[in-house]
Order: sequence, then C-alpha cells, then structure tokens
Amino acid sequence: MPNHSIFDVLQPHPEASAMVAFAGNKLDRQSENRLDDCVETALKHEGVHLFAFAGGKLVLKHEEQLLDPLFAPYELNELLPDFDNAVLLGFEETGEPRLAVPVGIDPEASADHLKFADGRSLMREALISEDLLGEFAQASGLISWNLSCRFCGKCGAPTASEAGGYRRKCTACNALYFPRTDPVVIMLAIDVAGDRCLMGRSPHFTPGMYSCLAGFVEPGETIENAVRRETFEEAGIETGAIRYHASQPWPMPHSLMIGCYAEAVSLDVNADTTELEDCRWFTRVEVEAMIESTHPDEIFVPVGGAVAFRLIRDWLDWPEA
Amino acid sequence: MPNHSIFDVLQPHPEASAMVAFAGNKLDRQSENRLDDCVETALKHEGVHLFAFAGGKLVLKHEEQLLDPLFAPYELNELLPDFDNAVLLGFEETGEPRLAVPVGIDPEASADHLKFADGRSLMREALISEDLLGEFAQASGLISWNLSCRFCGKCGAPTASEAGGYRRKCTACNALYFPRTDPVVIMLAIDVAGDRCLMGRSPHFTPGMYSCLAGFVEPGETIENAVRRETFEEAGIETGAIRYHASQPWPMPHSLMIGCYAEAVSLDVNADTTELEDCRWFTRVEVEAMIESTHPDEIFVPVGGAVAFRLIRDWLDWPEA
Repeated sequence: MPNHSIFDVLQPHPEASAMVAFAGNKLDRQSENRLDDCVETALKHEGVHLFAFAGGKLVLKHEEQLLDPLFAPYELNELLPDFDNAVLLGFEETGEPRLAVPVGIDPEASADHLKFADGRSLMREALISEDLLGEFAQASGLISWNLSCRFCGKCGAPTASEAGGYRRKCTACNALYFPRTDPVVIMLAIDVAGDRCLMGRSPHFTPGMYSCLAGFVEPGETIENAVRRETFEEAGIETGAIRYHASQPWPMPHSLMIGCYAEAVSLDVNADTTELEDCRWFTRVEVEAMIESTHPDEIFVPVGGAVAFRLIRDWLDWPEA
Repeated sequence: MPNHSIFDVLQPHPEASAMVAFAGNKLDRQSENRLDDCVETALKHEGVHLFAFAGGKLVLKHEEQLLDPLFAPYELNELLPDFDNAVLLGFEETGEPRLAVPVGIDPEASADHLKFADGRSLMREALISEDLLGEFAQASGLISWNLSCRFCGKCGAPTASEAGGYRRKCTACNALYFPRTDPVVIMLAIDVAGDRCLMGRSPHFTPGMYSCLAGFVEPGETIENAVRRETFEEAGIETGAIRYHASQPWPMPHSLMIGCYAEAVSLDVNADTTELEDCRWFTRVEVEAMIESTHPDEIFVPVGGAVAFRLIRDWLDWPEA
C-alpha cells in the first residue's frame, strides 16, 4: 500500500521538523552554483535585500509599529557594511537574491529607528515571520562562522571569502575552510512502563522552566550513542532504544539540534549537579499542566518553537503504556 | 504494551547505527571530567596506550602477521611524538586511559616494522577490530581538528590545547574553540509505487560502484530539508516524506553521516553531471544482485561497514509495494 508505507512512522504530524522555529527558510540556495563573484553579481540585482548583523545581533528597521530586517544596499551606508564578508543566502521565488552582511555599527549605540535582536528574542517574541526566521538562521550561522575564521588555523595568515561566503581560503598556504554546523542531541527519556518523561533544569534557564537534556555529539559518535552518553552523564539514567523525532537549526551560533526519544532502562536519577540544578520524572498529567501553565508549582516547559517543546508535546500523543 | 512500544519503529535490526563501521567505540569518555592536566595524568598511568597519527594516517606496528595500532609511551620515541597536542580519548573498562598523539615521522619513509593506513583502508581491509576502529574515529577527528586549529581564527595568534584536547584557547585574545563534527545527510530515495531505489555514481568512486546520494547539512537547515535539497540538486528528484534510519561517524576527517530514506514524489532523473556521472533507479532484483556481486553489468554497492550499505540492504527488508 504505497500510501501507507514505511514512511508513515507513527508521527502525530506530517513532519515534526517542519513545526519548529528557524526551519521556515524557503530560499533556493543553489548550492551547486556558488561562483566567486556571486555576491558582487547579486548586489547589482535590482530587487536585492540584505540582512545586517552587528556584533552577533540582527539589525531591524523600526518604523512606527513595524520591524523590518531587510535592507536595500543604499540603506546600509549608515551601518558601515563590510561587503568583503557578505554572504549570498539564495534566491526568492521571484529570482531576487537575498544576502547577509556584517556591519560596523555598535548595537549599544542608541538609534530610534534601529533595533538589535539576537536569535532567542527573535524566536520568543516572534519579531519576524517564520520564513524570515529561517533565513536568519542560515545568515547568522554563516556570518558568525566567517567572522571566526578570518585567520588560517593552520598557519595564522589572513583568509579571504570565496564562493559567496561558503568557503574561505588562506592567502598564504591556500588551506580551505568550510562553514561549520555543530550537531547537538536533545532528548526526552521515557519511562515506558511508568508512563513518565525525564526533564531537568540548568541554572541558566528561566526560573521555573524544565526541558529535555542535551549535549554536543562528540567526534566518533553515532547519534544514538551520544544520546545514551549524555543522558547517563547528566542524569545517571541508562537508556536502550533511541528514536529520532525531529531536527532544528539552532543559530546560537550554528548548531543542528537532533531531537530523539530515549527508552529508559534504569529509573534512579543521579543528576550531575555541575550541569543541572534539578532533574526528575514527570507524569503526563504534570506535563499537560506545564504546557497549559496551570501547574501548581508554577513550572513550565519551553516555548512552542523549540524542538524540546515538540519532543515533550508530541510524547503526550503517544499511546499510553 | 511497554514491550512493543513507540520505540519499535519497523526496524529490521535492533539498531542500524550499531551495525556500521566506526561505531564500535566502547571507551568511557568521561566528558564531564576533562581537566587541563588530564593528558599529563593519563600518561603516567601504568597501562596507558596511545594511537599515533602521522600526516593524517594511523601508524601501526607490523610484527610478523600482526598489526597493532596501540603504542606504550616508550615505544613512541622513534616516531617523534608531539605530546603538547595529545588528546585523551577516554578509559577502558579496566580504568586504563587511551590517548592519541600526532607524530613527526614521515609516512612515506620506509620502515619495515611500521605501516601507515587511512580510515578507508582500515575499514575496507578490516585491519583492526571494530572496537579499535571506533576509537580510531574519535582519535582521528580530534587530532585532525587540533592540527587545523593551531592558530586563532579571530586574531591569528597561536592557540594552546586544553581539556585533554577537547578545547583550544587563543594565547592572545582568549577565544575558545571546540572540536568540529560536520553533519552530512546520506539518503536512499525510494519510488514507493515502482518499488525502486535511486543510486548514483561519482566519478571518484571505484569503477562499477553505485551508492546513495549525500551532501553536507548547510547552516540553517533541518535534516529533512537537507535531504530534499541535495536529492533535488544532484538528481532532479523531488522528495516528500523523509525517514531517519541510521547514523555513522565518518572520520575523513570528522563527519557525522545521517542516513535517511526519502519518498520520491517525482521520477524523472536529471542528474547534476558535475557531481555524478550516472544516476538512475534500481529494482530490488538488481540491488540484490549488486549486493551478491552477481549483476550482469558487474556493478555493485558499497561495503558492509558503510551506512550507505545499511540503507540499501535494509530497504530490501521493507514490505514490497
């Protein structure tokens, strides 16, 4: 039955990865056609617009109640743009190119008609549309990587941008560098028999928030082994079967969140107190209350755009044990 | 039914990611306890052994018919070890530390008692055990990253190794750098109605070999969007539903292969001829013959250790359309 095939994997939604923030980028990247003069060519296009980044923050034009992150080239002059390190993100359906450029203006400087926002604020406060938030994720990762790769790691000489900001080449030893994306596992461990999930809170979280555990995938690790190692190191919980659920670009500065469920095979929590100030099991009833903001302890889970929310929310749709 | 839960996801095997090469690392990484003197301390341990890397290749002791990649510290002297850039991989069950160290010896220099091998040879020729191959993957990624991060990308000054080789710090501006792992999507597109899979061959492949398509996950992309973009760019095939199947560390030099199935929603192949010299649909009968090396055209698929093989082989276990 082709219409109920192996691709229907007990998903509550058509694709969980399409329901997270930063995933709405619809640009045609044309990644196979990035010529060295593509930024220059794109800047001459009549309909070109650019994102501007100042000190890691996105610059938004603030006009009356509207926030607009897209600049025409002539609007950038006052921001001190560094076009040598501009990146070509891709093309809109109409063919108009979309770029991003680092600018020299100080985000701390006061300017009534400008606002500066980081990725978390853009997401939480829904300052720009889902499509633009997805383009921001691509732009933010590339701008940040280019700025941290201005000198060659092998010999220390300056590097120069190539291929529309998707490659840098050492001006002395010709070593090549490519954009960086850091895979991170984020997981909800489930006590299948007890019908409970494991959440913790870092001291850095907003007071009252509990979320999934997470950690970087290390060199030489599978996704599944990274999930098991991190869950054991952070919570002392051993896990067996791992199930991938959803991924999310996380541009702070350039991570890829890989969201998984983990089947707990031990239950006694022994949290790493240097990482977590609390970590415990939560029942479905508790989690529902945390989502609805009706939990008596005033605890809650991350906002809807986070892949952690999808893991937590979608677990409630699982058949009960 | 806790024993037949949401974790049983129509997998032909308990965990496909446990059946690939480079995934057999059983060291206890103790990633939360990497002190700055941990390499020094580990080197004093009586049972310590090290992998040695020369010019990107693993050094093996060649004694009679045996190949041994593990060196005691005193055995390293003739290889010119650079202990300032050694990395602590983790600990064996017995508590013995395992490290890796770059060495200065030229791999082109002739030495009867030494052999030099890259990751592909180690895998294809099964030169070392699965466990050691997994440890090699971790070691290779870390050694390679450390060597490519000897100077600060932000200011050009030298960096120094910290945290057992898991962090580098700029000696001038104090910028911190962390190991790099590059996520790559590798996918088998399926024509569900026609019961066929899509494979291509790059001009770099061994003559006769066909495999899955693949490409780097770009900044700001979900796994699913990367699969769809790459399949369209390389083959002109549009895909809908994506299903994660297995992952694999791929230490050439430090990638994470993320293996997925993709449901084709268009069927006319239009291959990018700069990337692929052929790309077409294959029936189950053909794929079975390619695995058994009985295909009349003498074409075949990658070896058993590759995640591409798992995607291809495990598709044969799917229910027929």
